[in-house]
Formats: sequence, C-alpha cells, structure tokens
Amino acid sequence: MARTAGSDGEKTEALLRSAALELIARHGFDAMSMRQLSAKVGVQAAALYRYFPTKETLLFTLMKDHMEALQASWEAARPESDVSARLSAFVDNHIRFHIERRHATHVSNMELRSLSPERLTEIMRMRTNYEKELRQILRDGAQQGLFRIDDVTLTGMAIIQMITGVIVWFRPGERFSVDEVAQNYHRMTLRLVGAAHAEDSHV
Amino acid sequence: MARTAGSDGEKTEALLRSAALELIARHGFDAMSMRQLSAKVGVQAAALYRYFPTKETLLFTLMKDHMEALQASWEAARPESDVSARLSAFVDNHIRFHIERRHATHVSNMELRSLSPERLTEIMRMRTNYEKELRQILRDGAQQGLFRIDDVTLTGMAIIQMITGVIVWFRPGERFSVDEVAQNYHRMTLRLVGAAHAEDSHV
Repeated sequence: MARTAGSDGEKTEALLRSAALELIARHGFDAMSMRQLSAKVGVQAAALYRYFPTKETLLFTLMKDHMEALQASWEAARPESDVSARLSAFVDNHIRFHIERRHATHVSNMELRSLSPERLTEIMRMRTNYEKELRQILRDGAQQGLFRIDDVTLTGMAIIQMITGVIVWFRPGERFSVDEVAQNYHRMTLRLVGAAHAEDSHV
Repeated sequence: MARTAGSDGEKTEALLRSAALELIARHGFDAMSMRQLSAKVGVQAAALYRYFPTKETLLFTLMKDHMEALQASWEAARPESDVSARLSAFVDNHIRFHIERRHATHVSNMELRSLSPERLTEIMRMRTNYEKELRQILRDGAQQGLFRIDDVTLTGMAIIQMITGVIVWFRPGERFSVDEVAQNYHRMTLRLVGAAHAEDSHV
C-alpha cells in the first residue's frame, strides 16, 4: 500500500498491525474478529477492509513482514569475516530480533496452522531461506575443521529452537540483560557445535 | 472422576479429552466452543458439562494431566546411576514423551495464556518441579567436574527449548527415526554442557 510517508493512512495501518499482533497473540487467530480489531483501533470496519481485504490477508501480511524484517536484520548484521564471527552474529541478531518482537514471534510460530496452503508454502520458503544461512555457517565451520557436527539439519533446528525459545522466559529488567543472554547463548552454541576454541572464549 | 475401569463414562471422557486437544491445537482455546466439542464426540452438551463443568476446567485438566504424565514418565525412566546417564535418560524421555503427544504439547505450550491466575500458578509449579530435575543433573555434573556450565538456569532453559522443539519438525516415517533423533540430541546436549567425554561418545 504505497502512501506518503507518515500519512494518516500509514499511521492507521501501523496501529492495525500492532493491535492485530496483540489480539492474535492473546486469543489466537481464529478467535479474533475483524470487528474486534477495528473497535480496538477505533476505525470503521469498512475502513479496515481497505487495508486488509480478508482476515487471512492480514495474518499473511503480519507473518511475511516478520520474516522479511528478520532476513533484512540478518543481512545488515552479517559479517564478512570468519565462520565463528558469523555464528556469533547469527545468534546475537536472532535473539535480539525476537526479544523485541514477542507478539509477532508468537503469532509466527503458532499460526502457521491458519494459513492457506499457498501462503503457508510462501512463509515456509522464507523460513527455509533464513535457516539456510545458519546451515551454511555450520557447514563452513565443519569443512574448515572448526566445528564438529553430526548432522547439519538437526543441529540447525536445535540451535533455532534453543535461541527462539528465549522469548518464552525472558523479561526485560529481570535477572539477565539482553547482552548477558546473548553472550551466554553464544557460548552454549559454540559448545553445541563442538567449536575448537569454545572453552577459550569462556575463560 | 472415579469410575469403573473401562466403563462407558471413562471411554467418553477419554474421547472428549482427545477431541478437545485436537480442536484446541487446531483452532486455539478461545475459538473452541463446548458445543463444537460435544458435537465432535457425539454427546449432548449437557453430558459434556458433567465431565467438565467449565471450559477452563477442561483446559486445566488437559494441562495438569500432561504435566503429571510427563513427571511420572521421567520418574519411571530416571536411573539411579551417574550424572551422564541421568542426563541421557532425561533427554531421551523428554523427546519420546513429547513426540507421542504433539497436540497436548502444543496446547500446553500455547494456552498458558488462557488459564486463570490460580491455575496458571499450579501448572507453572508443576513445570518448575520437572525442570528442577534437569537443573539438579546439571548442577551435579558441574560439581563433579564432568560438565562445564556458566549458568544452570539458562542452560536448563536452552536444553528444554531445544528438545521440546523437536515436535515442530519431526514427523514419523521421514528421514530420522525417533531413536536417531534422541541419540543425536543426546550428543548435542552433552556438547552443550561441555561434557568431558562428549567427543568420545561421538566416535
């Protein structure tokens, strides 16, 4: 939806997205109605349909934006340097990105069930592309003799689940800062991939 | 609900539980109605309320049973032997238990949001008790100089998320058997905790 930057339309759309993420994360997609969403933001139901013609288009847009933002955030963070620096950057970026977007992360993880087959395929393709980046790092590390990995696919899934899982328990202002969590998970990831120098970076 | 083993009442209750898990996993708790559930199993709505007086009681029962079964399954599997054998048994039991109960696992992970504060507290207490078993293994391993762990709480969360995450991608009959997955995750876990002999068990 091309609009002048900062226009009222853009602001309304941003409010709708954020309210939809909150409602879906709280109640689930099937339980959220477009009427409830328009009431929450204070727009007419008819206006809502100008932004999102169907409820599923809204969900797809939220999930697609989430994956595009994740990919862009990784491309901006990805160093050209050695494989250990790339793994470190991947873990760090993934944790920070998801902690800042808890609602969107919950929705993206829970509501794949609510997408039509074509749109599910598109979101899964985006996920696969992102996860390929991690698998490439693991493969490079193994080829260079730096990592010890039995199976690149399983190891990639294990790392993704472990670092995404931070959003389940992390709350800002509690025992750990984001920096501490990211550093700690980085060390655990290095051990998990059998990185030769994992213990040095610990001392 | 005490009934003669195998009575019609018990059978109906088991059918209701299994149908409820399927409906909630598919649509979310808020979107499921008691009417929909009774229609799916083919009982009168009035009969359903004899088993579960409120919709939240139904959810709480499902989540409590899941945690009780998990705890019982671990207590039956837990070896008295050394710390590495206990860690191996924990990972193995956790993965097998959750793979066999995908719907219940999804419901337990997603629908904490739908419990009343008192019932949420009770489920969280059961979770904490179960997770304490893992933390004790990690602590024992670190004290005996077998494991290298920066933070027992973070490491425990990382392992739980990593091994529960198997249900997201695992499908029976595809590339890996349950045994292969359990063995592979066991080796990754040993590396993650810096187990001295992790690399030996690999060779």
